Amino acid sequence: MEDNRPLTVLNRNIGNHVIVELRYGKEYRGVLQGYDPHLNLVMSDVKEFVEGEQTRTLQSALVRGDNVVYISP
Amino acid sequence: MEDNRPLTVLNRNIGNHVIVELRYGKEYRGVLQGYDPHLNLVMSDVKEFVEGEQTRTLQSALVRGDNVVYISP
Amino acid sequence: MEDNRPLTVLNRNIGNHVIVELRYGKEYRGVLQGYDPHLNLVMSDVKEFVEGEQTRTLQSALVRGDNVVYISP
Amino acid sequence: MEDNRPLTVLNRNIGNHVIVELRYGKEYRGVLQGYDPHLNLVMSDVKEFVEGEQTRTLQSALVRGDNVVYISP
Amino acid sequence: MEDNRPLTVLNRNIGNHVIVELRYGKEYRGVLQGYDPHLNLVMSDVKEFVEGEQTRTLQSALVRGDNVVYISP
Amino acid sequence: MEDNRPLTVLNRNIGNHVIVELRYGKEYRGVLQGYDPHLNLVMSDVKEFVEGEQTRTLQSALVRGDNVVYISP
Amino acid sequence: MEDNRPLTVLNRNIGNHVIVELRYGKEYRGVLQGYDPHLNLVMSDVKEFVEGEQTRTLQSALVRGDNVVYISP
Repeated sequence: MEDNRPLTVLNRNIGNHVIVELRYGKEYRGVLQGYDPHLNLVMSDVKEFVEGEQTRTLQSALVRGDNVVYISP
Repeated sequence: MEDNRPLTVLNRNIGNHVIVELRYGKEYRGVLQGYDPHLNLVMSDVKEFVEGEQTRTLQSALVRGDNVVYISP
Repeated sequence: MEDNRPLTVLNRNIGNHVIVELRYGKEYRGVLQGYDPHLNLVMSDVKEFVEGEQTRTLQSALVRGDNVVYISP
Repeated sequence: MEDNRPLTVLNRNIGNHVIVELRYGKEYRGVLQGYDPHLNLVMSDVKEFVEGEQTRTLQSALVRGDNVVYISP
Repeated sequence: MEDNRPLTVLNRNIGNHVIVELRYGKEYRGVLQGYDPHLNLVMSDVKEFVEGEQTRTLQSALVRGDNVVYISP
Repeated sequence: MEDNRPLTVLNRNIGNHVIVELRYGKEYRGVLQGYDPHLNLVMSDVKEFVEGEQTRTLQSALVRGDNVVYISP
Repeated sequence: MEDNRPLTVLNRNIGNHVIVELRYGKEYRGVLQGYDPHLNLVMSDVKEFVEGEQTRTLQSALVRGDNVVYISP
């Protein structure tokens, strides 16, 4: 049976494109490069969206896990 | 006597359809694939509802446990 | 002398009808089936009330302890 | 010299009438029956006040410590 | 060199009059009787002020440390 | 290479004048006397500013670390 | 394979210019000098922006990790 615990799923998605929705209508889209058990995420080629509109491009970003609503591969 | 502690109940519902209500009027419906003790959840075939209206479909999502109000099988 | 520590009182009420008031004007009424030290609760035959009006019926629900204001047997 | 650490003071007030003020203008008055180190409280013969007006009577209640502003014997 | 770590300073002020400012415009003035590492405080002869106006007198109160902005001897 | 970890930097600034900005538009200026790992701070000769206007003078204050946005030497 | 865990990435950026976005529309730009596992950051030559407008210059600042949304090298 497949192991689908949250950190295992994050680990399987290293190198993949993910959507990270935060509280307050913010969203980050990019490639997952790293994570830790607090769901802090390292991403590359990041596009920031606020209320659905693209607002920034970041070569890389460490997104704090506290504000995450969901992470979708 | 049946063991109905929260994590045991989550474990029994792996593979089942669940409704996850979050703060701020958000709801995620889909199949529970995994969880951890923080109530972080891995779900597949996810439909997002905001204030009762469907807003997104996600093949899979890791929903952060912090924002959960309730999980209903 | 009776032991009335919070978790002991929860344990004595397994199988009993309880009222669970959450922040943001939400209330859940149903039968307590399980709990953990974070005050996460498993309930059955749950009625949800928002601002005093019944809004949902759930066969069972895991209510996250974080949002609890009080639990009343 | 008297020991007046918070948990010691709570313990001395088991069986006494207390006022528990919570955030968001809520207040619970009743007899303290039990507590734990998180300041979760078990009370009996509880009267709930919202913004100074009595709103409910509860035979007993487990009040979550997170929301407490102060407890006054 | 004097030890001025926060808990040491609290300890030195047992028996002294202190001002405790909380979030949401609340202030408690009285004599510090006890404390714990969470900055939970036991005070006697307490006057409560809300937005600068005196609103209550309490013979004693256990004030939860979570809401503290500052404590001033 | 210089050690610039947060607590080391605080320690180097004992006895120095610091600006402490808190959430909710509050600022405390004074001499840093002590700290702990939660960023709770003991300060002397403190001036409080709210939304940029000086509102109070305190001979000393223990400022809770939870509300800190930044500390600047 | 490169190690891209959050703290490793912070460590690699000691001495580099970073953008630190906080909740509530605040942003700090400067050189990263130190950090700890809570994402508390020590920065030098800091410019503060509020809602996109520069509001302050600080020779150095310890920014509390709690309020961080993201850190971008």
